[in-house]
Amino acid sequence: MPTHPQHLMLPGPTPLPPEVLTALGSPMINHRSEAFCELYRAVEAGAKWLCRTEQDVIMLAGSGTTGMEAALCNLFSPGDRVLAITQGSFSERFAQMATTFGLSCDTLAYDWGQAAEPAELESRLNEGDYRAVLMVHNETSTGILNPLPELARICRRYGALSIVDAISSLSSTPLEIDGWELDVTLTASQKGYYAPAGLCLMVLSERAWQMTETATLPRFSLDLRLARDYAHKAQTPWTPPLPVFYALREGFKLLQAEGLEQIQARHLQNMQMLRGGLSKMGFELFVNDERVASRCVTPAIPPEGIPADEIRRVMLEKYHTVLGAGLRKLSGKMLRVGHLGYQDLNTILGVLGCLELSLAELTS
Amino acid sequence: MPTHPQHLMLPGPTPLPPEVLTALGSPMINHRSEAFCELYRAVEAGAKWLCRTEQDVIMLAGSGTTGMEAALCNLFSPGDRVLAITQGSFSERFAQMATTFGLSCDTLAYDWGQAAEPAELESRLNEGDYRAVLMVHNETSTGILNPLPELARICRRYGALSIVDAISSLSSTPLEIDGWELDVTLTASQKGYYAPAGLCLMVLSERAWQMTETATLPRFSLDLRLARDYAHKAQTPWTPPLPVFYALREGFKLLQAEGLEQIQARHLQNMQMLRGGLSKMGFELFVNDERVASRCVTPAIPPEGIPADEIRRVMLEKYHTVLGAGLRKLSGKMLRVGHLGYQDLNTILGVLGCLELSLAELTS
Repeated sequence: MPTHPQHLMLPGPTPLPPEVLTALGSPMINHRSEAFCELYRAVEAGAKWLCRTEQDVIMLAGSGTTGMEAALCNLFSPGDRVLAITQGSFSERFAQMATTFGLSCDTLAYDWGQAAEPAELESRLNEGDYRAVLMVHNETSTGILNPLPELARICRRYGALSIVDAISSLSSTPLEIDGWELDVTLTASQKGYYAPAGLCLMVLSERAWQMTETATLPRFSLDLRLARDYAHKAQTPWTPPLPVFYALREGFKLLQAEGLEQIQARHLQNMQMLRGGLSKMGFELFVNDERVASRCVTPAIPPEGIPADEIRRVMLEKYHTVLGAGLRKLSGKMLRVGHLGYQDLNTILGVLGCLELSLAELTS
Repeated sequence: MPTHPQHLMLPGPTPLPPEVLTALGSPMINHRSEAFCELYRAVEAGAKWLCRTEQDVIMLAGSGTTGMEAALCNLFSPGDRVLAITQGSFSERFAQMATTFGLSCDTLAYDWGQAAEPAELESRLNEGDYRAVLMVHNETSTGILNPLPELARICRRYGALSIVDAISSLSSTPLEIDGWELDVTLTASQKGYYAPAGLCLMVLSERAWQMTETATLPRFSLDLRLARDYAHKAQTPWTPPLPVFYALREGFKLLQAEGLEQIQARHLQNMQMLRGGLSKMGFELFVNDERVASRCVTPAIPPEGIPADEIRRVMLEKYHTVLGAGLRKLSGKMLRVGHLGYQDLNTILGVLGCLELSLAELTS
């Protein structure tokens, strides 16, 4: 057993508050009982608050990927034309998934690390007749935050549904599901909600629910209409992962006590402090423009000659600090410092200090 | 907060040992780290031991239903002919799922509460050319235990794969995945493994893995070949529900300390004690023949004139004891006493005693 703290600086899973760790060890209950319904309603109320929505929040056992899949197989039929905005590992995965499920998926592809341009989306939607646009709000592999309100507005103008992977952004970043009239918005429990992985949360617009009526892709365990029927009874169709519900109930309590604006301000401040510190130390920020920089993860390229994965190794071994690695084509080229969820300036400054010590060690 | 114990007598979720409740509150870790790989390997080793298999145990986030769906969409193509043995709510659901995914699914249908007859399966396989037979080992809605080794043997003789929902049976009941050459066997973490819901576990035979190579039903988040690739690296493709892994590691430790034969003997003894007590009290056992009676749940019809759900209400309100209800067409007609997992003669005798008090109260 470690005799020192572990510092988990990832864009999910994030460290859990002690109140949540305690709640995770609550005894099992009957998921077809009033006791569970109360638990469900508490989590649902917290989720509606954090998701800024009056609509149903559907909760499915699984990961964020489960939610992406549920969006596709409930709304579409084989051959449906969709456009995917791609600019990193997770947005490309969404496009690949659409193709796997037999959709006719074109891409509006950007270099990794570039944000989407609303005008370019507009011209693509002008050219082609797309039923929907798949996009990520926060591309966790590159630390890009897309201009979601503008993109969603263009989707609506052209009659295409906006299907938004907000998996890593929803807890930390301004995002108005109802206000921006997003059609499908999805996130996952380990992404800053002070809960472990195991549940994805989804919100569908009325337009999106209507599409589920005619969509022919088969679905069973991910049937969103069935999940909504059960949600109205404060239950889930299949046996729910109780510890995640316990954690979310406790997590939403803590988050509500902090307040939505404060949460967003804290994430912004953490990001700015981290970006400033990394720059001063000679790291190159992968995303230059702060306006499109992620509020939950900051990828940084080390100073010339210092291998990113060596820094990650020293940070882990010597300073008990877990940093994310570069993904796929960025593997070995960067480190990704997560600052999502249960983090504050103290944790950010601690990481910056240890990065400075690590650089000194590796260049001495 | 309750100032008395809660007695959860369900066929899953089951009460969790204190060691597991403590483990559930372990801090989050990076699921792409050596720390997670160690956790994964410990759970995998426990699962292989309990599943009596040398083959890969695939672990997917979700419920048992997720595993049923993964079996279908990884092994089959639209139009494939399968035969489903049905005799209750969960086996009928499996058939319905197969139809939903476009399989040509016939049924060998039994009355609810009747076990499958191997000779009848043989004659159906003799008549029709089926790629696979879908079956449940333990039909949790009726408390029937099917003669699995005989059924599996007949499947092999006729070249049909055996797809076995062993969700509620695998932890408590003699079942030899390798020894009986089952093709797909699946279970779920909350079913007697001393863990909460959130993970399903699956074992595929070499024949089943071969079928995944040609099956054309689309799958992405449930892609078993991808999950196997990651399993060989001691990871999961998507973010795993860490608390379930923590619980399973601790749970398997406790189960291994008890020993497989002892676990099975304990479940058998609990079942026999419960059946004897219920009979003496005037309950009618829904499954008469002990040889095909479930080792984890015992449905019982109350003495004439006493509503089953009234008994469940008194048991809950007065004796803090949760009993299962009759499902679907059996709703209101029976109670189902779970005796799966963390139960012993003390808990069984406590329930019997409280049932006696409840009957007295309801007939006084």
